[in-house]
Amino acid sequence: MLERFTVGLDIGGTKVVAGIVDAAGNVLDRRRGETPSKSPQATEDVIVELVAELGSRWDVASVGIGAAGFVDAGRSNVLFAPHLAWRREPLRDRVQQRLRLPVIVENDANAAAWAEWRFGTARGEDHLLCVNLGTGIGGAIVHGGVLYRGKYGVAGEFGHMIVVPDGHRCECGNRGCWEQYASGNALGREARELAAADSPVAQTLIARVGGDLSRITGPLIAEMAKDGDPAAIELFEDVGRWLGIGIANLCAAFDPGCVVVGGGVSEAGEYLLAPARVASRRNLTGRGYRPEARIERTALGNEAGLIGAADLARWEAQRLRRWSLGALRRGVTARRA
Amino acid sequence: MLERFTVGLDIGGTKVVAGIVDAAGNVLDRRRGETPSKSPQATEDVIVELVAELGSRWDVASVGIGAAGFVDAGRSNVLFAPHLAWRREPLRDRVQQRLRLPVIVENDANAAAWAEWRFGTARGEDHLLCVNLGTGIGGAIVHGGVLYRGKYGVAGEFGHMIVVPDGHRCECGNRGCWEQYASGNALGREARELAAADSPVAQTLIARVGGDLSRITGPLIAEMAKDGDPAAIELFEDVGRWLGIGIANLCAAFDPGCVVVGGGVSEAGEYLLAPARVASRRNLTGRGYRPEARIERTALGNEAGLIGAADLARWEAQRLRRWSLGALRRGVTARRA
Repeated sequence: MLERFTVGLDIGGTKVVAGIVDAAGNVLDRRRGETPSKSPQATEDVIVELVAELGSRWDVASVGIGAAGFVDAGRSNVLFAPHLAWRREPLRDRVQQRLRLPVIVENDANAAAWAEWRFGTARGEDHLLCVNLGTGIGGAIVHGGVLYRGKYGVAGEFGHMIVVPDGHRCECGNRGCWEQYASGNALGREARELAAADSPVAQTLIARVGGDLSRITGPLIAEMAKDGDPAAIELFEDVGRWLGIGIANLCAAFDPGCVVVGGGVSEAGEYLLAPARVASRRNLTGRGYRPEARIERTALGNEAGLIGAADLARWEAQRLRRWSLGALRRGVTARRA
Repeated sequence: MLERFTVGLDIGGTKVVAGIVDAAGNVLDRRRGETPSKSPQATEDVIVELVAELGSRWDVASVGIGAAGFVDAGRSNVLFAPHLAWRREPLRDRVQQRLRLPVIVENDANAAAWAEWRFGTARGEDHLLCVNLGTGIGGAIVHGGVLYRGKYGVAGEFGHMIVVPDGHRCECGNRGCWEQYASGNALGREARELAAADSPVAQTLIARVGGDLSRITGPLIAEMAKDGDPAAIELFEDVGRWLGIGIANLCAAFDPGCVVVGGGVSEAGEYLLAPARVASRRNLTGRGYRPEARIERTALGNEAGLIGAADLARWEAQRLRRWSLGALRRGVTARRA
């Protein structure tokens, strides 16, 4: 039998990535698009377009969508998305009808955590948390080889735990959410504020964007940190410290064996993770009297989400195939009886 | 066969309660003692004494201890206890040797959550969190009929999640832990501060303790709230609001179907729970677009911990019995073969 492939998609606050994924979690082909964040219809069009493009070159059996939003327990509907326009959106059925392929929808961080557990940093780790720093913070839990989805499917929204009373306003509508202090958005905001203050430490940064502060982004700060710019390094120390405080809180609640840090901001590597480890240790309750979780960077980078979404779609297809075979056998037995 | 019973013990920051528990979760006899918080040896003596007293009147088969501390995955050792003197204490083996009965040790909030799931408010609920407001805050998770213990056994330490950066100092060594804002200790501290400010609203409170502010306790405030004292009602509103904010955070992370609020402070009932429900709803991310957890008061009151500890000991004894019977049968089969 010829190998059939799965398309995985990762739909974040600003972009969509799609890829052809094989059974071993390898990405064999890739496409990218923009997320038209204010229109569910346009986002759906982008998904269909990317799958069609990949489908013209590969034999696609099913599709897994990792979406930056609250996905219901049936893995069909996006209930709410802080950074996108979805509100009670029946995404799976809409896309399935247009593609005429089996589709599953999963929270993007859940998909990424699944990939890290199956193919990445957390292989063999049975108590795992994922913290993905992109536009916001995505979170997920894998416990005993199963995604912990909660009662209604929306567990793992770590980014919207309130860590500063009356703090920064969050896109979710609350104030003081963790993702307002440890995410790509937070890094950009802090960098722009630093530049706006026109401090001597920010002069290199201001020069890099030719004085146009709106051009300051997370990736630029990461690049400058690697070049040794002290202000950029300090900005990562601040975000890393907040990351560590939040991880200490999660360890108090979940007591995991490993916390995998992923998402675009994690590309800064130790500039982010070293201060996060220090702050996590310093704020962990019972420290010194308990085993502590490893804090590790993603092994799959920004493809974790699409790899996980594809792998979950493949598992679901296998489950349905086994179920149909079973039903067929039960039917044959029933006729014979 | 005559029914044999289990002793359950609940060891909190200030007192020890012990009871004879039957298979249906009924408490048939009770004893109480003080917790000598600064001496592990003395705490152990109290445990042994209470079990011996009960054992002189009942046929005791096993003992379950719910302890206000971090209990390891083997349910043997108390690794750390913020409100007691235990540090890497081999509690199970010590007590077992002295009692010559099978003993299990479990975190007190885990024991209480188990009881609520088996016999109490959360019967039939498969995604449950427990938040117990006593000296501090104990927390626990029951997921799919199993206690979620985390990798190393110490999950559910919700009380030590940091909710106020650089906030009140906590017994665990950190600052700003949730239990510094929503617990019996927090209620007492706020009430004493209010009285110390000598405000007109605090005059009834000051009179009730004859001017001796050190006599202000949580139970007194609860009593005064029931008598309609506006200051006492406001104190519960403040603690209830913090309780709700923390519950909203937990719902973001765990997405449970039900949150059971127990512990001594929960005896204030709606004075505590009504403001907690309002604050939880107001601070829940994605509110209006997701199903929400019920927030309910314990059905078992301050006996939940001892009932759960006893029931867990009973389950463990049954598991061992089945295992021994199985081993016996396997032995017989092996000899025949």
